[in-house]
Amino acid sequence: MTSQPHDLGQARACPPSNLAIARDARLWPIEEIAHRLGVPGEAVEPYGRGIAKLDLAAADALAERPRARYVVVSAITPTPLGEGKTTTAIGLVQGLQQLGHGATVTLRQPSLGPTLGIKGGAAGGGYSQVVPMERINLHLTGDIHAVSAAHNLLAAMIDNHLYHRLGSDLNPQTVTWPRVMDINDRALRHIVTGLGPPADGIPRQGGFEITAASEVMAILALATSLQDLRRRLGRIRVGTTYDGEPVTAEAIGAAGAMTALLKEAIKPNLLQTLEHAPALIHAGPFGNIAHGNSSIVADRIGLHGGDYLVTEAGFGADMGAERFFNIKCRASGMTPDAAVLVVTVRALKFHSGRYAVTPGRPLPTAMLAESPEDVHAGGANLVKQIDNLRAHGVTPVVAINAFPSDHASEHAAIRDIAEAAGVRAAVSTHVRDGGIGALELAQAVEEAAEQGSDFRLLYPDEMPLDAKIERIATRLYGAADVTFSPEARRQLDLYQQQAQGHLPVCIAKTHLSLSSDPTLRGAPTGWTLPVREVRLSAGAGFVYALCGDMRTMPGLGRDPAAAHLDIDDHGEITGLF
Amino acid sequence: MTSQPHDLGQARACPPSNLAIARDARLWPIEEIAHRLGVPGEAVEPYGRGIAKLDLAAADALAERPRARYVVVSAITPTPLGEGKTTTAIGLVQGLQQLGHGATVTLRQPSLGPTLGIKGGAAGGGYSQVVPMERINLHLTGDIHAVSAAHNLLAAMIDNHLYHRLGSDLNPQTVTWPRVMDINDRALRHIVTGLGPPADGIPRQGGFEITAASEVMAILALATSLQDLRRRLGRIRVGTTYDGEPVTAEAIGAAGAMTALLKEAIKPNLLQTLEHAPALIHAGPFGNIAHGNSSIVADRIGLHGGDYLVTEAGFGADMGAERFFNIKCRASGMTPDAAVLVVTVRALKFHSGRYAVTPGRPLPTAMLAESPEDVHAGGANLVKQIDNLRAHGVTPVVAINAFPSDHASEHAAIRDIAEAAGVRAAVSTHVRDGGIGALELAQAVEEAAEQGSDFRLLYPDEMPLDAKIERIATRLYGAADVTFSPEARRQLDLYQQQAQGHLPVCIAKTHLSLSSDPTLRGAPTGWTLPVREVRLSAGAGFVYALCGDMRTMPGLGRDPAAAHLDIDDHGEITGLF
Repeated sequence: MTSQPHDLGQARACPPSNLAIARDARLWPIEEIAHRLGVPGEAVEPYGRGIAKLDLAAADALAERPRARYVVVSAITPTPLGEGKTTTAIGLVQGLQQLGHGATVTLRQPSLGPTLGIKGGAAGGGYSQVVPMERINLHLTGDIHAVSAAHNLLAAMIDNHLYHRLGSDLNPQTVTWPRVMDINDRALRHIVTGLGPPADGIPRQGGFEITAASEVMAILALATSLQDLRRRLGRIRVGTTYDGEPVTAEAIGAAGAMTALLKEAIKPNLLQTLEHAPALIHAGPFGNIAHGNSSIVADRIGLHGGDYLVTEAGFGADMGAERFFNIKCRASGMTPDAAVLVVTVRALKFHSGRYAVTPGRPLPTAMLAESPEDVHAGGANLVKQIDNLRAHGVTPVVAINAFPSDHASEHAAIRDIAEAAGVRAAVSTHVRDGGIGALELAQAVEEAAEQGSDFRLLYPDEMPLDAKIERIATRLYGAADVTFSPEARRQLDLYQQQAQGHLPVCIAKTHLSLSSDPTLRGAPTGWTLPVREVRLSAGAGFVYALCGDMRTMPGLGRDPAAAHLDIDDHGEITGLF
Repeated sequence: MTSQPHDLGQARACPPSNLAIARDARLWPIEEIAHRLGVPGEAVEPYGRGIAKLDLAAADALAERPRARYVVVSAITPTPLGEGKTTTAIGLVQGLQQLGHGATVTLRQPSLGPTLGIKGGAAGGGYSQVVPMERINLHLTGDIHAVSAAHNLLAAMIDNHLYHRLGSDLNPQTVTWPRVMDINDRALRHIVTGLGPPADGIPRQGGFEITAASEVMAILALATSLQDLRRRLGRIRVGTTYDGEPVTAEAIGAAGAMTALLKEAIKPNLLQTLEHAPALIHAGPFGNIAHGNSSIVADRIGLHGGDYLVTEAGFGADMGAERFFNIKCRASGMTPDAAVLVVTVRALKFHSGRYAVTPGRPLPTAMLAESPEDVHAGGANLVKQIDNLRAHGVTPVVAINAFPSDHASEHAAIRDIAEAAGVRAAVSTHVRDGGIGALELAQAVEEAAEQGSDFRLLYPDEMPLDAKIERIATRLYGAADVTFSPEARRQLDLYQQQAQGHLPVCIAKTHLSLSSDPTLRGAPTGWTLPVREVRLSAGAGFVYALCGDMRTMPGLGRDPAAAHLDIDDHGEITGLF
């Protein structure tokens, strides 16, 4: 049986662009959205039309209210195009709202890098967007720039320390603190600073990373209060003395000023979805070298702001959701009631290993032909990611994010796979239809959350760091084994000795495979995870293991998105996707 | 006759700190301040407590209202400590308000560099402050960071252009566009970028300047509308082709995205003084390589927002006021009715040549002893700066900014000098007393503005660039002569040929002397201004002549202000001055 594409998904003669839809939206006053969330007026600080920062006192004010159901949205291993976790999370809260619930979504703030680089906007899509989308994609309330300023102040104070030979005995050759900028600029990856006459500093090798990769960003996401932020910033390690003792941001004298620079940035940003559900967009740490989740302080507010709090965790369930559980929930003490696993027809076809997908290019035409067989061929990834969520005591709902090019038989194939794995599945057309399109999903999530979870961390604090890495690799990634380079082994031993062994771990590997090899599709087994290097984010509170090359400063392509961005005669922004 | 210090100025047993005063302030809702200014509600976009951005439509809405009197606040040649132009401008509007006038002040936004470096806050002082001062000094609404992002996007797109060998035939060796950061970081003055493997860009010499030195900042200050901003950004020159033809930001394809990044930043920021007078804080271009004045768009709003618009122009009258007249007013078409020349006892003593003043250190004790003779000995600078304002057809009021350490005989000496020069003088204790302390000054300004000015530009557009430089140097600085290096001569010829000869000029020299030698005090004559190099800010619309070393990226000292900044147990910022 062959179905027509227009029976499904977002098919439409010429669907309006995200920007056109967003611009047509009638925003409610942000005070009304705050009221929906139950936040008292004095905690609401408007920041331009339709945006407010919420004073952290808002969380305290809400603490007495009933706790919402906490739902994490994850995905199967994505194609380079992404599978729509953001739109699904937004669509889901709109769907829950259609069912009469108060529902809030918490999301990461997008970096300017992708907005100006390859991808365009990151505020959802179609009729599941957060608005105003131009502001979300361009600075929002300036939090990312504040993170850059705090980060770079520390960098400047480190070099100033060396220049003036101030205390602390910092060995310049051990300095690991880079500089950051929220722009894709490959020429800044490897630089030499401090050139010129003696008054212009001490020559050193250095480099810039994109701000999302800053430990300060991870700290902003994991801090539970302004005071906790202050303490975490102080713990940041920037290098060692000549005797090998750690030198911290506190010792450099920077942590207080860094906190002052972040005093506004720690306040979550309140916006609204197209259907006026509260959306908190706050913090945007990287999903490989950091934990890739939005902020704890935003979730604290959302968790008492209605019946449901839906949050998105970056990349596939092996990465973002694993860190949501083992890093974010461990730090916050908040535990999830349900999970959503986003899946697309295209991603399962991709996992069949029969197609290549390139970011910034359209899908290969052959991938658009009806083929439930291809879907089944990639099904192992879905099954494994379901299992990865279950490993934490959470049974997911599979959300089939429908595309115009999908066929009914392909959706049926996904339902079959989910059913065989014993989990609910629902087709969602939230991009085309908004909350109404997510009703089936919302009902499934309602049921799942009603049943609740038996949440458990994957490993206890007291497990040694290497064993934690092995646990994640073998239990979640499907690795047969883990190897540690001598350097990695040395670092792990050092961190254990330095009483950092209680920290959770973050494995920096490709997000395009369950394995550490980006070319392996499906659910590869029998492979070995090679840990090249281990680093400590002492302030954020995790150790991260580098497995493969992690690019922390993207470059621009031949035809960057920025080249298409402009204003029109009315002063409106054009060229944002 | 000897007077006691406590009879005058801000003497007080233990005066509260600026931060303590600011924190005690009861802010009015910013909507009320906007109402005072006559701005319709729909043009007011609150940005956190006590701060709003004003949509540029606000200026159009006000256009029908009567024009305010336009007063520029300048100063004699300052000591490295500054002589209180900002506090005087704020005190003056508070004084005018005490007289029953509607009065608005427009100021530059302070850079994070000095706030975290040597100087502490820059939102006025004592009872003549703009509030909330923490926000003003730390990011405000993020405009400076938006300027950095727009600037650095262009830098990244230039290197991307070279890396991908995209069109335009740009010769990498001619690229003059640096990168910028709003942090004092000497190690970034001279760097090499693009090191590492080939995928990490093309090695080039480069460097960072502080964001206030960015041409984008000068453009933001001089643009008259969003569309004008777009055009100016497109005109920025980043280098030349191998044939020597200019390559612009438009050719690089960056100008549209840069404008989009600045869409919020071009909206002026509305705040209030401690006495609830409207204060527009917007744009912060450098005062040497750029024109050092706040934005035209803010002045456009303020100019129809009451009876008086008071604006501050950076450094001494030879610099900030000269550029206010010949660059800012030339671009805006708005002309001043009166000027204020701020003078202090300490600055005139400094101009006696008998004392050395070092930034970040207390004044030499000997300077605090009563000495009207010292004041008279430095009087030539005051006389010359009065003359410099008169050269533009504006007769200034001399504002004696009183300090606790001043003596009545010293104030009398200043009055004598002013009287001999035929201008009004008034003592102002606005720092200690707020608007009440500025009543005498406000009355003098009222009278002067009533009389009006006979404003004229110092030179016509059609005067050749070198003649413009000579006109400023000989007429205002007191130079006997100007010499041009062969390089400067070549550049001037080139710009004349390229039809840029109509632009005004900005002379980048020390602000610590009327001359180009920072050690010369008073009103030196018989010296020669050496023009080392001439550069073009084609987007901002001026040519600047470098006379001496202009540092465009400061460094941190041994004990930077940032090391003293922190938050207290209540989450309040401490250590801002």
